[in-house]
Amino acid sequence: MYDELKQLCYDLNMRLAASGLIKQTFGNVSVVDREHGVMAIKPSGVEYSKLRVEDIPVVALADGKVVDGTTRPSSDTNTHLVLYRTYPELGGVVHTHSTFATAWAQSARDVPLYGTTHADSMNCPIPCTEFMADERIQGDYEIETGNQIVNAFTAKQLKPSEVQMVLVAGHGPFTWGKNGQAALNNAELLEELCKMAFLTEQLRPNCPPLKASLVRKHYERKHGKNAYYGQK
Amino acid sequence: MYDELKQLCYDLNMRLAASGLIKQTFGNVSVVDREHGVMAIKPSGVEYSKLRVEDIPVVALADGKVVDGTTRPSSDTNTHLVLYRTYPELGGVVHTHSTFATAWAQSARDVPLYGTTHADSMNCPIPCTEFMADERIQGDYEIETGNQIVNAFTAKQLKPSEVQMVLVAGHGPFTWGKNGQAALNNAELLEELCKMAFLTEQLRPNCPPLKASLVRKHYERKHGKNAYYGQK
Amino acid sequence: MYDELKQLCYDLNMRLAASGLIKQTFGNVSVVDREHGVMAIKPSGVEYSKLRVEDIPVVALADGKVVDGTTRPSSDTNTHLVLYRTYPELGGVVHTHSTFATAWAQSARDVPLYGTTHADSMNCPIPCTEFMADERIQGDYEIETGNQIVNAFTAKQLKPSEVQMVLVAGHGPFTWGKNGQAALNNAELLEELCKMAFLTEQLRPNCPPLKASLVRKHYERKHGKNAYYGQK
Amino acid sequence: MYDELKQLCYDLNMRLAASGLIKQTFGNVSVVDREHGVMAIKPSGVEYSKLRVEDIPVVALADGKVVDGTTRPSSDTNTHLVLYRTYPELGGVVHTHSTFATAWAQSARDVPLYGTTHADSMNCPIPCTEFMADERIQGDYEIETGNQIVNAFTAKQLKPSEVQMVLVAGHGPFTWGKNGQAALNNAELLEELCKMAFLTEQLRPNCPPLKASLVRKHYERKHGKNAYYGQK
Repeated sequence: MYDELKQLCYDLNMRLAASGLIKQTFGNVSVVDREHGVMAIKPSGVEYSKLRVEDIPVVALADGKVVDGTTRPSSDTNTHLVLYRTYPELGGVVHTHSTFATAWAQSARDVPLYGTTHADSMNCPIPCTEFMADERIQGDYEIETGNQIVNAFTAKQLKPSEVQMVLVAGHGPFTWGKNGQAALNNAELLEELCKMAFLTEQLRPNCPPLKASLVRKHYERKHGKNAYYGQK
Repeated sequence: MYDELKQLCYDLNMRLAASGLIKQTFGNVSVVDREHGVMAIKPSGVEYSKLRVEDIPVVALADGKVVDGTTRPSSDTNTHLVLYRTYPELGGVVHTHSTFATAWAQSARDVPLYGTTHADSMNCPIPCTEFMADERIQGDYEIETGNQIVNAFTAKQLKPSEVQMVLVAGHGPFTWGKNGQAALNNAELLEELCKMAFLTEQLRPNCPPLKASLVRKHYERKHGKNAYYGQK
Repeated sequence: MYDELKQLCYDLNMRLAASGLIKQTFGNVSVVDREHGVMAIKPSGVEYSKLRVEDIPVVALADGKVVDGTTRPSSDTNTHLVLYRTYPELGGVVHTHSTFATAWAQSARDVPLYGTTHADSMNCPIPCTEFMADERIQGDYEIETGNQIVNAFTAKQLKPSEVQMVLVAGHGPFTWGKNGQAALNNAELLEELCKMAFLTEQLRPNCPPLKASLVRKHYERKHGKNAYYGQK
Repeated sequence: MYDELKQLCYDLNMRLAASGLIKQTFGNVSVVDREHGVMAIKPSGVEYSKLRVEDIPVVALADGKVVDGTTRPSSDTNTHLVLYRTYPELGGVVHTHSTFATAWAQSARDVPLYGTTHADSMNCPIPCTEFMADERIQGDYEIETGNQIVNAFTAKQLKPSEVQMVLVAGHGPFTWGKNGQAALNNAELLEELCKMAFLTEQLRPNCPPLKASLVRKHYERKHGKNAYYGQK
C-alpha cells in the first residue's frame, strides 16, 4: 500500500548518504503522504549500506504509531511529525549534522545574510532556535525539539514556506520543502551558505549584512510575484 | 544553424557542473559567435542532470532576443551581453558562486596579490566592484550588474584582456577569456587564488603584497613580449 | 590458523586507507583474538597499495613476539598491546594522523563538548594526554605512549568503554571499540568532531560548552539503560 | 635511448596531476639519469590531459640544452638543474603550487615543527627562503630561484638528504627525494604538514614547537642509525 512512499523515502535517504552532508548514520529524510495521513522515514541507527526499501517504516501523522514495517523509526521521528502537523505545506523534511551548519548551531548564532547566494533563497538570516529549557529536555525531547523550531518561527515571524531551514541550538540543522528532493536541496544549500558566511566573517570581522535593496531584488526575482528566474 | 555553438555551450556548462565550482544551478557559461552576432547560454534554473543540447537558447547580442530555442535564457543573460558588447575580445563568460570567491565578494574586498600563482595571470589585485546604488538595483538590474563591472574596470584602469575576472560586491564572481574554456579555467583559477589569499591572511595578518619586481617578472615571463612560458 | 584474523585486519586496514583519514602509511588498525591471546596489525611502513593478507603479522598479547608472519609489525605495536592488556573490552584499535584530530593533539588541548553530535557518543570532552616526560621518551617509547593514554584515563576517571578515543599530545589520535569496525567508525567520528569544534571556536571564541542537561539527554538516549536509538 | 626515463617522468607527472596537489598546469616533476648526465621534465604549459610520453623533453644537466624531444621544457627547468647539480643525492624534484604550502610561502614563514607527523620526516621547521633581491630577479630568474634554495640550506645548515622540501618565499614549494616517487610523496607530505600547522596555530595562537626530546625520538626511530620503522 505504501510501496511508492517507501521507495521515495529510501531513494532520498540514499541520495543524502551520497551527498557528502552526513557521516555514518547522522541524518535522515522523511516524506509525507497527506492523503493517507502518514510519513515514511529512515529507521533508527541503520547503516546506509545495509538499508533496504522494505526497512523503511511508515508512521501515522496523528499519533506517531508505525502503520507499516517492522523497524523502529528514526529517534528524530517526533520532531519531523511536529513539523508536518504544524506546517501543512511541508512535503519532506531532512535532518543532518553537516559540518558548517552544525558549527553554526553549536555557536547558537543566526547565520547573517551576507550575499546574494543567500538572498536568492531567503530574505532574512537563517534562524537559530533558543537552547531548550531543562524541563522540556526532561519531557518529550523530540516533540520539544519540534516545538523549539515552531516557537522560533513564531517569535521571529517567519513563514516556513519562505524560510525552509533552521538551526537547532547546540544540535544541528533541519530543512524542509514542498517535497523530499526540495528538502534535500535545502540541506545542501544551507551547508554552503554556512560555509560562505563563516569565510566572510574570517575575511572581514564585523562585516555588515547585505543591504536591503539587494536582498529584496534577489529574493523577488526568484520568488516574488514578477519572478523571472527559471522556466515558465 | 547554431548547432555547433549550442553543443559547445552545453559541453562547457557540463564541465562547469563537474568542476566542483558550483552547487545545484548556481552558475552558467556563455559563448559568443561574433560573426553571427549571437551568444549561447545556459537556460535559467534548469538542473544540470536534465540539461540537453537542444535546451540551450541562442540570444542576439544586439537586443538580447532569443533567436533559437524555446527555453528562457539564464537570468544573468543581460550581464553577459553587456560584457560581450563592451569588450570585443571576449569569447566566453562564466558566472559562478564558488565558495571562496563568493566569500571575498561578500566581504566586498579586492583580493590582494600575495604570490606568484596570482602574478602568473595578473599584475594587480583581483578587482571587486562597488555595491550597486539603489536606483540602479530598481532599474534593469542585470544590465546594471554588467555596467558595475565595466565601471570598476574603467575606474581602476584595467584591461579585460589582462584581468579576466572580477568580484561583484555582495554577489560573486564573473570570469571570461578568449573562449569558453579559457573563461572556465579562469573561474577555477580565481577560486584557488581566493583560497590561497584567505589562508595567507589567516597565517599572517597584514601580510604585505608581493613586491613589484617579482610580480613583473612572473607576469612578463608568461604574458610579456619576451614570454617564454608554454610551447611556441 | 590465524587466517580469519589476518583477513579481517587486512580488510580494516584497506578500509582505513580508503577512508580519507590517512596519507601514505600514517595509520594502522589492529584487531585482537582474546581466545588465542593474539593481535593482528599492519606491518610497519608497507604501502597500502602493496599490502597483502599474508603480510599481516600476528603478535602475542603477552610479550609482543610475532607468532605468525614474516614482516615486522607496526612501530606502534606496543602502544596497541598496552591498550589491549589494560582494557579487556577492546576488540580493535586504530591509530591515524587525521588532519583535524592531529591539529588538536598538536595544540595539546582537550576537545570541548560543544554539541549533540559529540554528546551522542560521549558525555565529556575528548581527552588529550599530557606530554610525555623526557625519561619515558628515552625508555620504551611505544609502551610509554600506551601508558600515557592509560594514565590520562585514570587521572580523568574515564571509562574506555564510554570514551573510545584519545589524543596523544603532540602526536595524534588513537581510537578503539568492541571490534575493529567500531574503532574505525570512531576514528572517522573523532575527525568530524574535531573539525566541528574547530569551526565552532572560530565562529564564536570562548563558546561555552553544551549545557549538562542536553549532554545527558543525548548520551542517555543512545547509551543509557533506557536508550531508544537504533534497532532493538 | 631515453625511453625509460621519459616514461618514468611521464608517469610521475600524471600521478602529480591525479594527486589533487595541483590545478591546471601549475606543477611539474623531473627525474634525473646521473649516468647519462640528463634530466627529463614536463614540457612547459602542456595540459596534463594532452600530455604524451613522446612530449617529455630530456635536458643535459651540464648546460640545460634539450638532447631529446621537440617540446620546450618547463619554465622551471633551470631551478631543477641547479638542485641536481648542487645536490648529487637527488633523484627527482617536484614543484607544485599546492594550496596550504603556497599560502605558507606567500606568508614567507618557516613552518614550525608542531608535532610528530612532522618529526617523523624532519627534525626542524620546513625552511622558507628569503625573498629574492631585485637584481637577481632581473638576472637569470630560474637559476636564481635554485640559488635561493641552496643559499637557504647553506645559511640554515640543512642537509638536502634530511630536509627534502622548501618553500620559496612568495612563490611555492619544491620537494625532492632519492627518486621521483619519493619527491612526489614529499610534495603530498608537505601539503599535509602545512595544513596541520595552519590549523594548530588557529586552535592555539603562539603554540610552542614540539619539545626537542620528542622530535629526536620520532626522527631517530625512522631515520637514525637504530631506526626500527619499516621493513628490514
